[in-house]
Amino acid sequence: MRAVVACHRASPAWTRLGRADGRPLPELVVRSPCGHRHAGARIGRHTNEGCSVISPIDPTSAGFLLAENRNMPMHVGGLQLFKKPEGAGRNYTREMYEQMRDVEEIAPLFLKHPRRKLKTAGQLVWEYDDEFDIEHHVRHSALPKPGRVRELLELCSRLHSTRLAWERPLWEAHIIEGLRDGRVGMYTKTHHALVDGVSAMRLLQSVLSTDPDKRGMPAPWGYRSAPAKAVRTREDAEKSLSEVPIQALRTAMGITAEAAGMPSALIRTLNKGLRNETSALSLYAPRTIFNQSITGSRRFAAQDWPMERLRAIGKASDTTLNDVVMAMCSGAVRTYLMELDALPETPLVAMVPVGLNAKQSQIASAEGGNAVGAVMVKLGTDLHDPADRLRAVHRSMKDGKEGLSAMTPVQILAMSAIGQAPAILTPLFRMQGIVRPPYNLIISNVPGPKTTHYWNGAELVGTYPLSIPINGMALNITCTSYNGKMAFGLTGCRRTVPHLQRLLSHLDDEVTALEKAAGV
Amino acid sequence: MRAVVACHRASPAWTRLGRADGRPLPELVVRSPCGHRHAGARIGRHTNEGCSVISPIDPTSAGFLLAENRNMPMHVGGLQLFKKPEGAGRNYTREMYEQMRDVEEIAPLFLKHPRRKLKTAGQLVWEYDDEFDIEHHVRHSALPKPGRVRELLELCSRLHSTRLAWERPLWEAHIIEGLRDGRVGMYTKTHHALVDGVSAMRLLQSVLSTDPDKRGMPAPWGYRSAPAKAVRTREDAEKSLSEVPIQALRTAMGITAEAAGMPSALIRTLNKGLRNETSALSLYAPRTIFNQSITGSRRFAAQDWPMERLRAIGKASDTTLNDVVMAMCSGAVRTYLMELDALPETPLVAMVPVGLNAKQSQIASAEGGNAVGAVMVKLGTDLHDPADRLRAVHRSMKDGKEGLSAMTPVQILAMSAIGQAPAILTPLFRMQGIVRPPYNLIISNVPGPKTTHYWNGAELVGTYPLSIPINGMALNITCTSYNGKMAFGLTGCRRTVPHLQRLLSHLDDEVTALEKAAGV
Repeated sequence: MRAVVACHRASPAWTRLGRADGRPLPELVVRSPCGHRHAGARIGRHTNEGCSVISPIDPTSAGFLLAENRNMPMHVGGLQLFKKPEGAGRNYTREMYEQMRDVEEIAPLFLKHPRRKLKTAGQLVWEYDDEFDIEHHVRHSALPKPGRVRELLELCSRLHSTRLAWERPLWEAHIIEGLRDGRVGMYTKTHHALVDGVSAMRLLQSVLSTDPDKRGMPAPWGYRSAPAKAVRTREDAEKSLSEVPIQALRTAMGITAEAAGMPSALIRTLNKGLRNETSALSLYAPRTIFNQSITGSRRFAAQDWPMERLRAIGKASDTTLNDVVMAMCSGAVRTYLMELDALPETPLVAMVPVGLNAKQSQIASAEGGNAVGAVMVKLGTDLHDPADRLRAVHRSMKDGKEGLSAMTPVQILAMSAIGQAPAILTPLFRMQGIVRPPYNLIISNVPGPKTTHYWNGAELVGTYPLSIPINGMALNITCTSYNGKMAFGLTGCRRTVPHLQRLLSHLDDEVTALEKAAGV
Repeated sequence: MRAVVACHRASPAWTRLGRADGRPLPELVVRSPCGHRHAGARIGRHTNEGCSVISPIDPTSAGFLLAENRNMPMHVGGLQLFKKPEGAGRNYTREMYEQMRDVEEIAPLFLKHPRRKLKTAGQLVWEYDDEFDIEHHVRHSALPKPGRVRELLELCSRLHSTRLAWERPLWEAHIIEGLRDGRVGMYTKTHHALVDGVSAMRLLQSVLSTDPDKRGMPAPWGYRSAPAKAVRTREDAEKSLSEVPIQALRTAMGITAEAAGMPSALIRTLNKGLRNETSALSLYAPRTIFNQSITGSRRFAAQDWPMERLRAIGKASDTTLNDVVMAMCSGAVRTYLMELDALPETPLVAMVPVGLNAKQSQIASAEGGNAVGAVMVKLGTDLHDPADRLRAVHRSMKDGKEGLSAMTPVQILAMSAIGQAPAILTPLFRMQGIVRPPYNLIISNVPGPKTTHYWNGAELVGTYPLSIPINGMALNITCTSYNGKMAFGLTGCRRTVPHLQRLLSHLDDEVTALEKAAGV
């Protein structure tokens, strides 16, 4: 494909344009998918109709775009906290913002936006933004006083509530100053049609370094000649389809096409593949306040705990780190629902994405992203004793994984589809009061870097994921580990999940309770 | 019309909902257009299809909605600066934000959002938001360090760049802290389909008081049983149509309908009414960099000058205050264009909305808003001497007003249409390089309150308007007087009007130059 993303406008007036602050603009270079470099995207304007790059949107991405509405924005987010390097000046945050903004070249992923093509019966296509404005996407924000973490979480909640408009590339980044402890925040937001949550996190990590003295590092949206292997965009996934056997490819494509637009066909697939109920799939979760229609108001809460504490609990009770994370969620959700007088008698069921083994992952990766399956975990929220809950979670997780490894590739694909496209599948289950939800909430645990990382000398001290609540699934818990700490990111509908932030103290209480129960 | 805007949901879970900060929600009452009060819009959710209020959108408002695109957001804005009252605590801005947010009742204007009705061939209708979320509309923001006016203007520029999504009521307000001089900022943004710029400003003023000790004052979006007379929404304008003679009404409706969707008919009207060129209408303005297609990036700059200084110049030179304002713009734009080596040889022409006399206004007001006509003013930008420019502006303005008073009602309506709906009319003139623009920029001067006003004890110390640049008209200058100061609000496309903020110092230089020329 040879095409120009943006072209120079030869009028002399255009060469005089400056930045908002009056300083001259550095020339921005845009790399089109053909690999050619084109100068002037920032100061030029696209005038020639034949100049734009248009490509079709794959069915999974289209599904995320079409499922979206005011109440269900389909973007994933990340909150990163940085510690300023030694000797940082007063204007450090502004300088960091300027470094993030003044990239020389933008990666194609961050230049495309969806459009309905009128000529071809409303088909969705990706179009490259030929009036790309980096200042729209990279922003310098500040917190109101007193600048506690609470104000930061409030800002992130608000930013995460607003939909990304289709008329521009589907991402935003906010460099945030005003934390009273002097740390710098960065909230990023990327549409699920571009990357999934894990990839979005890895995308950021891919520009970090373990070397605190390294400088000249690019922004995550900057173009790099050799993109980090860990970053898998939906575009990459599409390309990688050619690497899997043709039969698996057809099946995978069938699933995604069905997920995007053919519910009845998908229901048939699900029925066929999963009627022999393994414990991996439970379609019998109790009803809870989480399983209602949601609104567009978001509430985000986040906190981290030393992995050492969680590992000690696991070691003493012969369970895994992941089991302990699940048990923390179980206990916290139990207390939360009890306070609201809304705890069901039967245990809640969590949908937990898990990594697949090599045989499984080859097929599942064709589905469009990460090689994950999904396990339905009974959380034991009916049990009073923390130790009992931990045991119940451990057993259910083990059964689920065994069930998964006994499944056929088609079954795994169907499972993956549930994990990958819950928003699309939800209506199929008619969860909104008609039948019981297949699970009550999504809990994912994504491992991150184990050592301290830096961006141009600023130490990354914390990284927290913001995910996507959907109709019928108003609370999402995503955990991610980094540098010896386990971070919990809780994203919910503010109206459906009241006082979501209380879950943080319940989680904290649960760590203490589990420690006591395990005798550590 | 009897209808319920929002209804209680009887589930016990719903009564427990809280605010983001965890405190209980005050009950929000919504008043539907039928005048009935309905509780629980904030905590309840609309589930019954028959419950929503739908009303058609008048053609003028529809025109503004349909003309809008990414490059041409159609909202007006306002920036207000408040001085904290004596003894204000550390959390004053947060408290002010909470007062603005925690309104008991929302006025209907702030509850409706547009929707395309699929059942009736895509007709645009107003629908009341039954999941209204005040926290989406009223926001607490902060400025990055060092918190100068420059950071404030940058934030306003950014906020003014983003389109209001149709899926929610078309307004936003940001209470802004972090100005290093301790003042509190408020940026508001309202869609032109709801109010025009003048009304938006008056809407705010209508809740202010001259009494510094008065408390318990409502937010501008709060419902008041007796709305201030000065505030005219498009809805009011629609209603007032019944008060004008039927013939004038038909003509007016014809104009707006044509402006909204029938360009060729409008061109005929304009040709018929205005072919006998008075000096009030010039279709021969030179081409400038302002008269190009624009992008969606906005730049806002604002400053005020003591009216006393401007009045002294007027008095000494036998011109009006408004003439001096125009001459300031003339000189500033001249210097600005000279610096860019882009000053045309022939003088620039400004479109200036002017108030009409009683006879005229009765008819023009039927057009849908304020009783204004438009005068085309030759700015004398070809003249070197500031005194010559002031004289040229004075003469051109006088001729224009005389021309206007000699016009027939139909001609005035056509003129008004240009002023009211430039975005809709612009394509008709094919200003984008094919024929010459009818005028180069819009300069309005709207008188405001003459005395100090307060909101719950906070003194309003400055008020600046943000307007709408459109394709072919990349710079808008709106002036508004308040308490002895004349405020200039400059809104432009950041890419088409580079270094817009330079106009501020040019305006300042021009005041000095005019003072010198007038001998004051």
